Amino acid sequence: MPPRTLSNYYKDDWKSGEADFVDIISAVNGKPVARTSSAGIDFADMVRHGRNVGGPALRAMTFHERAAMLKGLAQALMDRKDDLYAVSRDTGATDRDAWPDIEGGAGTLFSLASKAKRELPNSTIILDGPIEGLSKGGTFVGQHIHTSKLGVAVQINAYNFPIWGMLEKLGPALMAGMPVIIKPATPTAQLAESAVQIMVATGLLPKGAVQLVVGSAGDLLSHLTGQDVVSFTGSAATAAKLKTHPTIIEHSVPFIAEQDSLNASMLGPEVAPDDEEFQLFVKEVSREMTVKAGQKCTAIRRILVPSSLVDAVQDALVQQLSGISIGDPADKATKMGALVSAAQRADVVSRVGELEDEAEIVHGSLDEPTLVGDGAQTGAFMSPVLLRCSSPLSAEKVHSVEAFGPVATLMPYDSVADAIELCRLGGGSLVMSLFTHNKSVAREVVLGTAPFHGRIAIINRDCARESTGHGSPLPVLVHGGPGRAGGGEEMGGVRGIKHYMQRTAIQGSPDILTAITESWVTGAKTDTSTPHPFRYKFGDLEIGKTIETGSRTVSLEDIEHFAEFTGDNFYAHMDEEAAAANPFFPGRVAHGYLILSFAAGLFVDPEPGPVLANYGLDDLRFLAPVTPGETLTVRLTAKSKKKRNDEYGEVNWDVEVTRADGKAVATYTLLTMNAI
Amino acid sequence: MPPRTLSNYYKDDWKSGEADFVDIISAVNGKPVARTSSAGIDFADMVRHGRNVGGPALRAMTFHERAAMLKGLAQALMDRKDDLYAVSRDTGATDRDAWPDIEGGAGTLFSLASKAKRELPNSTIILDGPIEGLSKGGTFVGQHIHTSKLGVAVQINAYNFPIWGMLEKLGPALMAGMPVIIKPATPTAQLAESAVQIMVATGLLPKGAVQLVVGSAGDLLSHLTGQDVVSFTGSAATAAKLKTHPTIIEHSVPFIAEQDSLNASMLGPEVAPDDEEFQLFVKEVSREMTVKAGQKCTAIRRILVPSSLVDAVQDALVQQLSGISIGDPADKATKMGALVSAAQRADVVSRVGELEDEAEIVHGSLDEPTLVGDGAQTGAFMSPVLLRCSSPLSAEKVHSVEAFGPVATLMPYDSVADAIELCRLGGGSLVMSLFTHNKSVAREVVLGTAPFHGRIAIINRDCARESTGHGSPLPVLVHGGPGRAGGGEEMGGVRGIKHYMQRTAIQGSPDILTAITESWVTGAKTDTSTPHPFRYKFGDLEIGKTIETGSRTVSLEDIEHFAEFTGDNFYAHMDEEAAAANPFFPGRVAHGYLILSFAAGLFVDPEPGPVLANYGLDDLRFLAPVTPGETLTVRLTAKSKKKRNDEYGEVNWDVEVTRADGKAVATYTLLTMNAI
Repeated sequence: MPPRTLSNYYKDDWKSGEADFVDIISAVNGKPVARTSSAGIDFADMVRHGRNVGGPALRAMTFHERAAMLKGLAQALMDRKDDLYAVSRDTGATDRDAWPDIEGGAGTLFSLASKAKRELPNSTIILDGPIEGLSKGGTFVGQHIHTSKLGVAVQINAYNFPIWGMLEKLGPALMAGMPVIIKPATPTAQLAESAVQIMVATGLLPKGAVQLVVGSAGDLLSHLTGQDVVSFTGSAATAAKLKTHPTIIEHSVPFIAEQDSLNASMLGPEVAPDDEEFQLFVKEVSREMTVKAGQKCTAIRRILVPSSLVDAVQDALVQQLSGISIGDPADKATKMGALVSAAQRADVVSRVGELEDEAEIVHGSLDEPTLVGDGAQTGAFMSPVLLRCSSPLSAEKVHSVEAFGPVATLMPYDSVADAIELCRLGGGSLVMSLFTHNKSVAREVVLGTAPFHGRIAIINRDCARESTGHGSPLPVLVHGGPGRAGGGEEMGGVRGIKHYMQRTAIQGSPDILTAITESWVTGAKTDTSTPHPFRYKFGDLEIGKTIETGSRTVSLEDIEHFAEFTGDNFYAHMDEEAAAANPFFPGRVAHGYLILSFAAGLFVDPEPGPVLANYGLDDLRFLAPVTPGETLTVRLTAKSKKKRNDEYGEVNWDVEVTRADGKAVATYTLLTMNAI
Repeated sequence: MPPRTLSNYYKDDWKSGEADFVDIISAVNGKPVARTSSAGIDFADMVRHGRNVGGPALRAMTFHERAAMLKGLAQALMDRKDDLYAVSRDTGATDRDAWPDIEGGAGTLFSLASKAKRELPNSTIILDGPIEGLSKGGTFVGQHIHTSKLGVAVQINAYNFPIWGMLEKLGPALMAGMPVIIKPATPTAQLAESAVQIMVATGLLPKGAVQLVVGSAGDLLSHLTGQDVVSFTGSAATAAKLKTHPTIIEHSVPFIAEQDSLNASMLGPEVAPDDEEFQLFVKEVSREMTVKAGQKCTAIRRILVPSSLVDAVQDALVQQLSGISIGDPADKATKMGALVSAAQRADVVSRVGELEDEAEIVHGSLDEPTLVGDGAQTGAFMSPVLLRCSSPLSAEKVHSVEAFGPVATLMPYDSVADAIELCRLGGGSLVMSLFTHNKSVAREVVLGTAPFHGRIAIINRDCARESTGHGSPLPVLVHGGPGRAGGGEEMGGVRGIKHYMQRTAIQGSPDILTAITESWVTGAKTDTSTPHPFRYKFGDLEIGKTIETGSRTVSLEDIEHFAEFTGDNFYAHMDEEAAAANPFFPGRVAHGYLILSFAAGLFVDPEPGPVLANYGLDDLRFLAPVTPGETLTVRLTAKSKKKRNDEYGEVNWDVEVTRADGKAVATYTLLTMNAI
């Protein structure tokens, strides 16, 4: 079969490059499988198309509409996953390796879509934090908001997870309302192209929302401004080159980098060889070394083991690794496939050479491995290589040279403090893991190493069966790390979306802020006209609609009756002397729940209507005591709304319960579900 | 008086430079007032001292202890403010100009200290967001935390606000537990040095927490790693040089930049000359042009006015500016002082020359101004210069050339869309302001320009009297801006502290996460032994202490009685048919507040004891209906604690109310105040 010519997706059309083709070679048999070129693409025009066509279209959609779009894209990828698995095998990946790439990638979109639906409003801006009071009289207040950046997101992806790596960046940008230009790594661009084809074919993507460059990115970066974002995964050397691009520097273009990482995994100092944690640790290290032939940014490179156990761990690891059969990913007997290319294999071999200055190989070798099956002898295969460094505290290369293949180094430690220091010597990593069942060890190690890591997994007998393991970034958790790992941060649910938005502090009067945020701000105008706010359907209810209730006096009998009825005989309500001795109360006071209940009695409009249920309450604070004889009134104001489906939506109400002297005794947000 | 030799604060000692002195010249009379040099400082050693001595000492303090320290520093500065005002006058600043620098600086520390006390725990890590469920069975969960970075914060400050500019960076770093190396701008280093002397003299700063470099920063940046942070305010040219420093790039050192900014102020399209907003606008523009002789990062540089009003605004502005008397800041008759130096004046004059390519001067001139008083004729004085650009949409320099002095350009606009485009042409600014009383104009302009701004102030008749104005960054709001403004972000209350901390996702079992976060996680072990949790004083109450209560059956009579007693006759409780028609209920159900009240009746231990008050409730959700005859039980678990003062502290309790079928009907966090 002649190599397939990949296409760029340029201004909503599939367009092959015009010259300067680069071949993509099968990792398994060394034959060309595809060729790429972006010659003929006008990158200025591509950026302009994203900005002028894709951006406005995406920003016209609400977060919930964007979430529905992501869900549809994820579903389409799942529907066509067999095609993707087939393409994937040529990259050297077994189906087990490809699972996190293909299904993990789709899952990442599903997860983000569901988070966004749940946690974001059905609008286009995100409120950040509460209203900030900026003045005594309350006429000048502040609110932080996030709005979509008006540029394009340029996403430069690594070769190892061509689908997941693309989607974990694509999802947040599209959710944020930013069009994306995808630049996959050439060695696996055929998989990215296949996935983009599937997504484009859904028809769910607005024009200009996604473009794809297979081949050189040319002068793409030269066309960016401070409204654009570059998100990069790859080597530190490439990152350094791109980060210092004159345009990036001149326009302060946000640059999210995820680069080298020498992730550590540590066996707790208290673990004995027959503890479950010992076996869990050995299995996880072996798995992380061999999944994807070790070509994972999050793979374990440094294996930290108490000195007394280092031989036992080595023996157990060697035994595990010896069982790893290597060969064609399409062969069922294969447990580990090939590296992505001969060049990558050569690079790993050379890095292992550097590591050998400080460590010795205790398992595996740099020779061509024996393969299962046949017909794959020309691929980029290598055996797992376990090294051992006996003086890691004084070593340098084992903490800084990343051999991006099935390679890791065993290191003994003498104390928890030393182990923490070894973790830190990595200079910043994406992830570390700790195998312990001891809470104080966990606390000491986590607090000692957290500043150097984007993620830390503590695995033990209690969570192992449900654990997602050391190497799996999760869509709801942040992914990234400081220092050597690039200093970037991605995912983490809604956090990842905000990297593609601008945070702005808005200052003004409550009326103006209410108009901008579509959320009623204390002090803003209210509408107290009839009918009662509970008479309005979701769609007709306007923010600011208010009921100011009649009043009710709380008698001592009420308090005593409530205590008797509910069983809440707390002394502050029942014992005048003890209550008066309390620093907060002048004497016996009404129960907080009595105040809430009487407030509801005052504001509720009882007849059937659009209000379906009170489903909760937020930020309730009792601000002043209510003594017997006090009279209460309530103000209830429609604060914000969020449509949940075609039948009903959530309404948040701002409630203030006030004493006769005008002092607020309780404030809270009441949550109701209202019919559409 | 011979010029004073400023001292570096190096390894907890005051140390003058040894050679290569640079003179600081009075802005007012051109005579040297001080000299600076850092020759003799070993910057590697300085960084090491901060890291090894200052860092551990600061991190041993809790957030509340650090807040108390900041409060003490701020108080000391206020106590000695007269000394600082005296030093300030030589920099060309009137006392009105110096107020935001000196008292605004101290106020920024006070505000941050108070925010931190209120919003942060009395410990050393910050939890970020809720627990993330990572598994069906709940044995593997996640939590994001922020921990202190383990390096030093290098803070490179601008000359215009030597105290405020220092403190708005210093406060967040110290709060985060990071030691600071302060590098003030040389032209006003004497003020920074005076302020640091006052702070050091308090004895509140741990050893190594603060160091000061007066003079060249030498090879300081070469000693940084990914655990350090650089925070810079100054010119784009200097920022570009520092951001691309090989060490910054190699180690991905976080670099927060606040640089050039051509801030716009816009008069709303609907404003008439006799509207209050017209006068407010003219006064604010005039004030922003002349305060600090226009040497403010946030000053108004671009004045956007409806075409029909541009002559009227120009006339009004010219009248205002004509009343600005210029002279020695010490002279009471002076309204505007000098620029910081002759070099700065020359730079501004040259920039105005560039602006004149696209705009004409309509008020003021580049000649030496006439001064009030005498004896100041040799200073760096200039008159306010108002330019007017008639075709701003096609202009370039008026949107990009920052004349950092009393200079601004008037620009007409024809439509709101054009005005938004003009704002955007600034390429990213720290702030813009909008003078309007029209809510839809405010919404359109804010949503159209927010991606380009760190802050937007909307000023009108409703808020003007309490407004802090266009030019004032506030400690509770973020300060910074995208693109030309540098892409950095500072302050914003607790947000600013997090720039000096690392966010890490922690994964593990509920028990392990409870141990790390000191906050009880659902699924973690509980201690249900006697006595009742309400019997423990704050200090003795352990996280996880739990009461599992007896049960109570909710009868139809209870519901009816509660309705009658409270007045809450909502149909879902009282009308079987209407309730059954509701999509959430099978028929009549108990009131949410009845469930809460009965729950309290079940878990309260009534006798006087350490629990002083229930002061609120968070995150209450009613999860399932309670129909007549249902039996409820409650689990109440001590979740987290926060000491408030020496008498009492806050305790958060995790509460779950369960039906007989085991289904949770309500979950919430109960807040009590407990005696120490």
